[in-house]
Amino acid sequence: MTYKQLINEKLYLEEKYNQFKNMHLHLDMSRGKPGPEQLDISMPMLNAINSSSDLTIHETDYRNYGMADGIPEIKNLFSKIMGVEPKQLFIGGNSSLNMMFDVISCMMTHGLCGCKPLIFQKNIKFLCPVPGYDRHFNILSYYNIDMINIKMTHSGPDMDTVQQLVENDDSIKGIWCVPKYSNPLGITYSDEVVKRFSMLKPAAKDFRIFWDNAYAVHSITEKDDHLLNLMDECKKYGSEDMVFIFASTSKITFPGSGVAAIAASDNNLKDIKKRYSIQTIGFDKINQLRHAKYFMDYEELINHMKKCGKILKPKFDTVINKLTEEFKENSEFISWTKPNGGYFISVDVYSGCAKRVVELCKTAGVILTPAGATYPYKIDPNDSNIRLAPAYPSIEELNLAMDLFCVCVKLAVLEKKISTL
Amino acid sequence: MTYKQLINEKLYLEEKYNQFKNMHLHLDMSRGKPGPEQLDISMPMLNAINSSSDLTIHETDYRNYGMADGIPEIKNLFSKIMGVEPKQLFIGGNSSLNMMFDVISCMMTHGLCGCKPLIFQKNIKFLCPVPGYDRHFNILSYYNIDMINIKMTHSGPDMDTVQQLVENDDSIKGIWCVPKYSNPLGITYSDEVVKRFSMLKPAAKDFRIFWDNAYAVHSITEKDDHLLNLMDECKKYGSEDMVFIFASTSKITFPGSGVAAIAASDNNLKDIKKRYSIQTIGFDKINQLRHAKYFMDYEELINHMKKCGKILKPKFDTVINKLTEEFKENSEFISWTKPNGGYFISVDVYSGCAKRVVELCKTAGVILTPAGATYPYKIDPNDSNIRLAPAYPSIEELNLAMDLFCVCVKLAVLEKKISTL
Repeated sequence: MTYKQLINEKLYLEEKYNQFKNMHLHLDMSRGKPGPEQLDISMPMLNAINSSSDLTIHETDYRNYGMADGIPEIKNLFSKIMGVEPKQLFIGGNSSLNMMFDVISCMMTHGLCGCKPLIFQKNIKFLCPVPGYDRHFNILSYYNIDMINIKMTHSGPDMDTVQQLVENDDSIKGIWCVPKYSNPLGITYSDEVVKRFSMLKPAAKDFRIFWDNAYAVHSITEKDDHLLNLMDECKKYGSEDMVFIFASTSKITFPGSGVAAIAASDNNLKDIKKRYSIQTIGFDKINQLRHAKYFMDYEELINHMKKCGKILKPKFDTVINKLTEEFKENSEFISWTKPNGGYFISVDVYSGCAKRVVELCKTAGVILTPAGATYPYKIDPNDSNIRLAPAYPSIEELNLAMDLFCVCVKLAVLEKKISTL
Repeated sequence: MTYKQLINEKLYLEEKYNQFKNMHLHLDMSRGKPGPEQLDISMPMLNAINSSSDLTIHETDYRNYGMADGIPEIKNLFSKIMGVEPKQLFIGGNSSLNMMFDVISCMMTHGLCGCKPLIFQKNIKFLCPVPGYDRHFNILSYYNIDMINIKMTHSGPDMDTVQQLVENDDSIKGIWCVPKYSNPLGITYSDEVVKRFSMLKPAAKDFRIFWDNAYAVHSITEKDDHLLNLMDECKKYGSEDMVFIFASTSKITFPGSGVAAIAASDNNLKDIKKRYSIQTIGFDKINQLRHAKYFMDYEELINHMKKCGKILKPKFDTVINKLTEEFKENSEFISWTKPNGGYFISVDVYSGCAKRVVELCKTAGVILTPAGATYPYKIDPNDSNIRLAPAYPSIEELNLAMDLFCVCVKLAVLEKKISTL
């Protein structure tokens, strides 16, 4: 295109953009929140316990204090979700993020397995596969832990770099992983990647893999990705102490009113249970039982997830179809993921344009995850990654939001091109 | 009594004791747990929300993420329970102990209101009115915070000592208080004591009063003790930043499945909210709403507590009547409290006998709170305090347990007397 053609195209796009602005939209695609129609699927769970329920099971009154590490019924369910034995589980409150925070807090002030508390060690670091989950990074920022970006490939983190760093630098104390339907890429780690994790020989005795299996059962297509069982692999090499696995029902039942769990080795569980025994008398067993009674067995849970997937699939399709329609011929400007599950579509726009795209969308009333949020320190070195969260809006809203998004991408790229001519 | 009389009396008591042993009792009076008949009162709450409930209120879907500091309905309820404005509240999960732990953890690693984190300050200390609550002391032990015993009087902690220490020693960073129906004494701080707390001028800018108002609405008699409002008093002297107030519904509805809250000044809330925004996306709003819907207003909650009190009163009476029957003529051996509310009766036995009494009871199948547990480091300097928790057992069980307890007290005192002859 000639300069004049570019300017004309920009004027045309600005006119389209202004039409959107005049619509005074109020849409939010920023967070991985289920939509109301998906939450409706879980409403019958609220009948699983009522005033007639017998809450004394095997002579234990679940209404009272006790069973600080969780009730057996919910351990059985998480055992299936997480692929570990019930005895490897500690059941918490409503938030797996809170449990990750608790583990890192424990590492900071007390250390794990007899190691020096991190707060008294110098220059400690975590590896952060990017793009990744902002709330993971926020915990590290809160504790002033240095973050090192690790490139994500289509099969997981770049394991050559991970191995080189973890095995040679004892200041590296952890790595964040969302191994299935990763946030935001939606990819699932390959068997090879999982195996290489289990075979790591960390320089630091207190290095831990934070395996946030948030989307273990969250496929949206008929084809559920396969994730190799990290704990089983670790057992082959005696490296179980290297792993904390997290999961929750936040995106199975109700976000914020679900149940969360940690799976860990005996040694790690010992430290964590000690902390929790100081921290609380116990978590909400009635809500644990509510979940366990509703999902009588794992098959029911999987059926339930299929219903959720059926609501999510057309939303993901809407986003992907819009992108395909608008950009099939301009693929140097933009690329996007097509995940089989999870909550996000990751978009990479032309370098240096992500912030501008998000800003343009925001000005026109569509809130996206802030550009940069998927990177430590909120700095995307290429300013190109944008996380789209299609789960919450309706399909009608998504169509509108994506029409706007596509205009904003084109406009931002055009502005960039013109400015660098 | 002559030596021979003492020996004969001992033989007689040992025979009685052995009769109890032969009964193979299994009773637990160790913890402040409501009994099943008391928990039954709260069962209708489990119907407050069901699958037909509209959980979208003022356009906010309570099933989803959001409202990280709690829903307005539960803030209104806690505002009445705690005597503070709703905007001074942060609503948490099921455990106020966990919130106390969170605040102290925050002080340890980040400091409050710009002060240096406690972990980087030397020789930090908390004041611990004794006898007190073992779980408070356990948090301090976990963080290696030194504990200083403060004598409890009939109107609260010995405020001359508190004031002298707090105002002159900047290494003193906090004090634990259970100001109403204290654990285990059952006393309520006098107006004078509350006023003196509000007027403290701490040497340390980061000194905090941990006001664990666990039994704010937990009277068991017609006469509810009056506790002066600490936050209101602090406002008179601009000392609100000195106070964290805690409460929960653990002993209103279900222990472990209730809702907890912190009340604090704007400055303290700012630090605490920042931490919670890193730690979690939010707490269980459905359970918050369940509680708020069940207790439509504060009057209903007070009526509910009256029902609980009616169940607790005869249990407390059973313990006190047994003690009165058995010891009215031997009051130099034993004294006990007669609280108007709360969960405990505090017994002081002849110096050096508490451990032996608890051991004798345990051997005969009645578990009491371990002697020493009501003191920091589990050391009761007089070995005389025993915490009795009458709430859980039935009256029949309490009669039996108290008959045994009285025999054990007499036997332990007699053993002591003989050994020191």
